[in-house]
Parts: sequence; C-alpha cells; structure tokens
Amino acid sequence: MTPRINLVTLGVADVAASRAFYERLGLKASSAGNDNITFFDMNGVVLALFSHAALADDAAMAAGEPPVFRGVTMAWNAESEASVDAIFEHARGAGAKIVKPPHKVFWGGYSGYFADPDGHLWEVAHNPFFPIDASGRIQLP
Amino acid sequence: MTPRINLVTLGVADVAASRAFYERLGLKASSAGNDNITFFDMNGVVLALFSHAALADDAAMAAGEPPVFRGVTMAWNAESEASVDAIFEHARGAGAKIVKPPHKVFWGGYSGYFADPDGHLWEVAHNPFFPIDASGRIQLP
Repeated sequence: MTPRINLVTLGVADVAASRAFYERLGLKASSAGNDNITFFDMNGVVLALFSHAALADDAAMAAGEPPVFRGVTMAWNAESEASVDAIFEHARGAGAKIVKPPHKVFWGGYSGYFADPDGHLWEVAHNPFFPIDASGRIQLP
Repeated sequence: MTPRINLVTLGVADVAASRAFYERLGLKASSAGNDNITFFDMNGVVLALFSHAALADDAAMAAGEPPVFRGVTMAWNAESEASVDAIFEHARGAGAKIVKPPHKVFWGGYSGYFADPDGHLWEVAHNPFFPIDASGRIQLP
C-alpha cells in the first residue's frame, strides 16, 4: 500500500480564468471537466482546478480567505539553465506573476518561482543532481 | 513547452516528524535528503518535505502562520471502495487525522480526506470514471 499522488487540486477564485491561464501555459483540458472543475493530464499526474470554496466544502473545512503563502509549491524541473529562462519567458507571456526571477541557488541549481492567478507557486528549476528521464520524470538517487 | 509537476513540496513544522509520518504511510526516503529536506519518489512524482519557513524563504515570500485550509489538496486514487476504506485504516494507523471519513459522493465516486501532521490534505478516492492503469496513474478521457 504505497501512497500515490494521482491528482493535485488547486483552489481558485475563477475556474474559467485559471483554466485559460493554464491553457496559455501549454496544458490541454480533459473533456471530463465542466464549468465547475477542470482536469489537465500532466504526464500521468492530473492537475485539477476547483473553486476555493467548493474545495474547502469537499474537504469539510472552513474555506476562509485564500492564504497568501500556502506552504505548498509545485516544481517544474528543466533540463538546463537556459530552459529555465525560456520557461520563465513563456510563463510571463501567459500572464504568470514572476515571484522570484531565476538565479543560481546555494544547493548548486538554478531556480525561480512564478505564481498563477491565485498565487499558487510554481518553482522552475534546473537541478543537476536530479536527472530527467525520457518520460520527463526526475530520477532520485 | 508543456508544464510538468516534477515535485510537490510541503512546508512542515518538523521535517523529521513529517518524514516519519510519510514513512509509516509507506514511502521510502531518497538518499538525496538530509536533516533539512526529505524527498520521496512517488511513482515518478517527487514529494518533498521542507520547513514552512525555509520554503517561504526559498520563494521569497513572507511565511506567516501556516494556514488551516491551504486551498490545495492531493488525491490518492484507489481501485475500489474497499481499497479506499483500507487506505483510511492504514492512514489512521500511521497517525493521520481523519478529516472526512470516506462515503459516497454526489459525482458518483467514494471519497474522504485525511490530513498529515501539518494539515496538508489528502483525498483518497475511488473514481469509477477515471480508470487506473498498470503503472498506477489515472487515465483521463
């Protein structure tokens, strides 16, 4: 019984606006979605967009105001520093907010952060210690 | 240029305690980790545990108090309702907080939520419309 991450669901203020953002970023929505929820297959992991209030309700939690820093980040690993830079230009063009422009970091990589329309944080990183295989997945030692 | 989720990083209060929780849940930590960060390979997606404050600092954000509802959930999809129940018993034994016991839900599935030591939410769901392939990944229409 080994845990899996099959989906990551992001609570958003406006599903249609967030869907449009992620489509500009390069994802293709599944036909399984509707006006209330969107699903994107990301190489075997599904990214779902659902309203912040509906997601809280589904989890039987009080929604509250969406936090500024959620304490959760997603990372998109890239094959090179140049690829990280190219992804940042692409994300900027899609309307991402650049939170931290990419630069060399203490652990030997090259990384920065952008945010989606609701402030969900994406790190884009080149990590020379975590090679990326042909399927786009990273290989841990 | 298609976005990928290579890692999901959870900000936690105590990396060692969270690592122990996820190990009880069935994950095996990579040798790439250290006292400050833990990496688990989850079938090609990496779950990382990093201190809440350090994660905020990495993203150049103010850490603030960890929010109760983060507006982000992860889902672990299971092959049957019985399997969802078994996963909940397993998670309870590992020290998870049961947030919403599994039950039949309006969209035709069977789902519940548990929380890790920092309140990060895991949905465990059987979704008859999203088949799970031999690699453990769900197939969207």
